[in-house]
Amino acid sequence: MNTDYEASWLTVRLGAVTANYKTFQSLAAPAAVAGVVKADAYGLGAAMVAPRLAAAGCGTFFVARLEEGIALRPLLPTARIFVFDGAAPEAVPALIAHRLTPVLNSLNEIAHWSRCATGRRLDAALHIDTGMNRLGLSPAELSDLAASWRKRLAGLDLALVLSHLASSDDPKSRQNRDQLSRFRTALAMLPPAPASLAPSGGILLGKEFLFDLVRPGIGLYGGHPQPGTGPNPMQTAAVLSGRILQLRRIDKGESVGYAATFRAKRPSMLATVALGYADGVRRSLSNRGMAAVAGRRVKIVGRVSMDMVSVDVSAIAKTRIKTGDAVEFIGDTVTLDDVAETAGTNAYEILTGLGRRLPRRYREGA
Amino acid sequence: MNTDYEASWLTVRLGAVTANYKTFQSLAAPAAVAGVVKADAYGLGAAMVAPRLAAAGCGTFFVARLEEGIALRPLLPTARIFVFDGAAPEAVPALIAHRLTPVLNSLNEIAHWSRCATGRRLDAALHIDTGMNRLGLSPAELSDLAASWRKRLAGLDLALVLSHLASSDDPKSRQNRDQLSRFRTALAMLPPAPASLAPSGGILLGKEFLFDLVRPGIGLYGGHPQPGTGPNPMQTAAVLSGRILQLRRIDKGESVGYAATFRAKRPSMLATVALGYADGVRRSLSNRGMAAVAGRRVKIVGRVSMDMVSVDVSAIAKTRIKTGDAVEFIGDTVTLDDVAETAGTNAYEILTGLGRRLPRRYREGA
Repeated sequence: MNTDYEASWLTVRLGAVTANYKTFQSLAAPAAVAGVVKADAYGLGAAMVAPRLAAAGCGTFFVARLEEGIALRPLLPTARIFVFDGAAPEAVPALIAHRLTPVLNSLNEIAHWSRCATGRRLDAALHIDTGMNRLGLSPAELSDLAASWRKRLAGLDLALVLSHLASSDDPKSRQNRDQLSRFRTALAMLPPAPASLAPSGGILLGKEFLFDLVRPGIGLYGGHPQPGTGPNPMQTAAVLSGRILQLRRIDKGESVGYAATFRAKRPSMLATVALGYADGVRRSLSNRGMAAVAGRRVKIVGRVSMDMVSVDVSAIAKTRIKTGDAVEFIGDTVTLDDVAETAGTNAYEILTGLGRRLPRRYREGA
Repeated sequence: MNTDYEASWLTVRLGAVTANYKTFQSLAAPAAVAGVVKADAYGLGAAMVAPRLAAAGCGTFFVARLEEGIALRPLLPTARIFVFDGAAPEAVPALIAHRLTPVLNSLNEIAHWSRCATGRRLDAALHIDTGMNRLGLSPAELSDLAASWRKRLAGLDLALVLSHLASSDDPKSRQNRDQLSRFRTALAMLPPAPASLAPSGGILLGKEFLFDLVRPGIGLYGGHPQPGTGPNPMQTAAVLSGRILQLRRIDKGESVGYAATFRAKRPSMLATVALGYADGVRRSLSNRGMAAVAGRRVKIVGRVSMDMVSVDVSAIAKTRIKTGDAVEFIGDTVTLDDVAETAGTNAYEILTGLGRRLPRRYREGA
């Protein structure tokens, strides 16, 4: 029930998410396009976003944790759901019960999953490490697997072979071609199976990165797949807004907020807004970040508090601003990528850091 | 239902929270001690924490948002619940229906709340701005109120007069005494009412800061009330753990993670752990932060990813570490304040940034 007054909220434009999905479809065709909906669809709400993607034609989803897959299964009864975390022995019963496909990250995991396939066949994805050195089969493990894959993959149907690109957001990075080359080598050593390499950024790297399935995440949610390389081809999907709790005139020399890090150089009008770092307005935006009031950019002044932030609205005409008005901290004026850059991080951390308590409002249109 | 395998989790030591509450009781006596449980009890889970505090003798709670108060009311049927955000006209019906006491931040809010008290009496708190310049009555508004408080507060019972200290975490800041002095002046101008000034840090500033009610938040949850001023008097209440998904040997010169920001200076053993920035391991800890494995401190290497982080476990004996083991990123070895300092923020942002998807496990003991 959301009929009570809300002081701040995240608007999720479901139409923009599906438009971004379709953009990736046209960029990636004939490759299929999966939806990466881990971390609660990057904070936007997987329960709302994933069924929308399914309705737009998405049949394959990726989550990180077992629990995420379990939560998603009733909402996507027929979809393929891959779990990146793999198949720890304790996770196996739930993976099978909820028809989740583990991304197997080591020979040990392959061996255990294959043993579980006794008397039945199980689907599996294989993760080849081509340079991230986080998870996945190392070159040595890959060689071992290649030498005896018939035995090691007994009972398993290979639904996908995948790898992760470390630098796909940077089209100039040499690492992309190096990883592509290693991935091709790996595929040649394994039995034929659908292959996947590209996240959002990888889709823009060129046709040879597309393979059978691409796996966009951040681009679906409006983040630039390759920040700093020209206009963002994606539509804004997440808009963060908070109401003005109070307008305050302060004198020259007065300070604002914790530790008094801002001191007014002239008499100023400030708006105190009901959004703080507990909602996802990062503390690193203190005295640096921007927001939008009545379509104009305004500056964050003082430290961002847990529940509040102050912006300098001196330049806004008095008739255009009042207590209760909404101020936008992420949206079409101050974009997700603007915020990430100013906060010294990336769009992914901004979105996944949106607050637990922040109500999500879902809009149909873009 | 949490019987499924969990790859990472937050352990909340409820016994430590109540022990910290009792520490504040003995430090603040004879002042009463409220519990600040806004932002879902700083991420620990207000639904579990607040009833525990009530059982320990806490009768007064503070939240920021109206929704937080509404959610808390059924769990705390008889407690006093103050809402910092005040009484926007649209919020009034719910404030009254759920017996929430607004912290009134302006003469306009006072006037509106007083009008709502026609034919009945309503409780109210008054927020005096003594230098934060975020919310609360400005000096000019305070003078107006003092001049006609009988009329302006008609129908209202003054449950509390409060102000916020901007620098109570720093006992050396002159701002503390300045604000104390302004708060005393304000109290002298108003009708007699219980008064409150001190958050966790303020409780350590001296008896004259205690007044009738203190309002600890961060200290209840284990954060140092005044970081950098000697041993932390609080017990660790939040422990962040993730399982090792994979152990990887890498060669000298190999890189790890996104953008390959770490390159091994020697052959190394890395553990890839199922915790990422979507869980609250901040990206700013990349190549800088620490964790604890088998009681030993180990370094984060490479960029923290959304769902994973790598630590260098080369110094841990092979017999003491295996896939599936838990690695601690916040706890007794690497403390909340350690993490905050390394991440370039404060303990509040670390706790409120703990991930939405992270399961909370509640322990009775400390």
